[in-house]
Amino acid sequence: MADLDTFAVFADRLADAARAETLERWRSGCAAEGKAGGAGFDPVTEADRGAERAMRALIEAEFPDHGISGEEYGDRPARGRWAWSLDPVDGTRSFICRLPTWTTLIALLDEGRPVLGVIDAPVLGERYVGWGEATWRNGERVRANGCRTLAEARVSTTDPYLFEDRDVWERIASRAKTTRYGHDGYGYACVAGGGLDLVIECGLMPHDYNALVPVVRGAGGWIGNWEGGEDLQEGRVIAAASRELYEEAIKLVNS
Amino acid sequence: MADLDTFAVFADRLADAARAETLERWRSGCAAEGKAGGAGFDPVTEADRGAERAMRALIEAEFPDHGISGEEYGDRPARGRWAWSLDPVDGTRSFICRLPTWTTLIALLDEGRPVLGVIDAPVLGERYVGWGEATWRNGERVRANGCRTLAEARVSTTDPYLFEDRDVWERIASRAKTTRYGHDGYGYACVAGGGLDLVIECGLMPHDYNALVPVVRGAGGWIGNWEGGEDLQEGRVIAAASRELYEEAIKLVNS
Repeated sequence: MADLDTFAVFADRLADAARAETLERWRSGCAAEGKAGGAGFDPVTEADRGAERAMRALIEAEFPDHGISGEEYGDRPARGRWAWSLDPVDGTRSFICRLPTWTTLIALLDEGRPVLGVIDAPVLGERYVGWGEATWRNGERVRANGCRTLAEARVSTTDPYLFEDRDVWERIASRAKTTRYGHDGYGYACVAGGGLDLVIECGLMPHDYNALVPVVRGAGGWIGNWEGGEDLQEGRVIAAASRELYEEAIKLVNS
Repeated sequence: MADLDTFAVFADRLADAARAETLERWRSGCAAEGKAGGAGFDPVTEADRGAERAMRALIEAEFPDHGISGEEYGDRPARGRWAWSLDPVDGTRSFICRLPTWTTLIALLDEGRPVLGVIDAPVLGERYVGWGEATWRNGERVRANGCRTLAEARVSTTDPYLFEDRDVWERIASRAKTTRYGHDGYGYACVAGGGLDLVIECGLMPHDYNALVPVVRGAGGWIGNWEGGEDLQEGRVIAAASRELYEEAIKLVNS
């Protein structure tokens, strides 16, 4: 794991570089524009673009063989096993509303599999880093809560109207101890940190979910798709504080 | 306004005293219990109780004639015109999920009318104070955005399932530029700060809404009930970045 150790230090530099582009723009109120060709309002800001450019420049200088896939710019194919998945501002809608829980998401993929993840929340000064068997928040180990039943679970999703079938959310929510809304990728960090017990979402893109996987798993949580498997390509994701809780949610989703 | 000037300094002390009881408990993970006699899960924590006790003790020592109405303890009637409305932790559900946008709400009422409001967000280090013709965030003046049309508005509510008639929310949300969820009283601070343009909610209690009124009005925003009036006793509240936007929302709510 010597490689991952080195890459974790480097990922920290990437997150620092992104923060330098995002945080001041958030504080001073960054204008949003709709993305060209998007259906509806799909905001992007100079913070998104500046942060992605800064991270790409560092990767290109340090690891020219590594692939890069970012939300705002094109893919650069890998020459070898390693590639980076970048979402400079996850939760751009929160960003433009001056709400605090947007994040920068960074993942390192080994032959396409996420092995190191960063969820950085600049406004909150919280950086979650997960790889191997551990997840840290600002350098301190964190653990998922271990909650095993939905009846005891604190459950969250960003926006119930993003569900293709809102009944899925309502079945989960009606059996949970309490529900919360609105936090995009930061919700998964909260599962790793023990504050939330379950997050369920759909419509996620690879740059949205890649970083979440090592963060949740390193903290002892479970993350998978809505069918009980690990392949997240369909964009339907559940993260849970325990495997038992994940399995209970899967049964309800498919009932 | 000499009185209010003095009271604003005092309200700052109240918010400091509440922070001393809440913030560390939030960081270390405060256990919640259900309130006795409540329907469903109505969480209260030692942070709620400790913060309210600390604020009550200060008011009793400094202004023994002032009334006090808090969320967790009984009312103390005023002998005279002044009374304090206290919500030690607004957004207790966020608090117990270790989410960051819970607040302490403090209002000073003059013959029942809120004339000074504090929305303090300890995790974010943001304190909004409104009275007279101004609202400050950490000592700097803030202004609502002035947005006049729903089509351009960033709109929020805490939880769409809290609407007695969810169609009301859906009529507003479907015409807004973007929607966000999940922030309780902090959403109204964001209207005052210019980040959000409209918040609509129902089911608010006096300790939930009293502090919001001077904060939103001082920033040049508009706040009222769902019928177009100023009486918030029914708990149905709309805060908007401009009167025009408020009026547009009222028409939709009642359509």
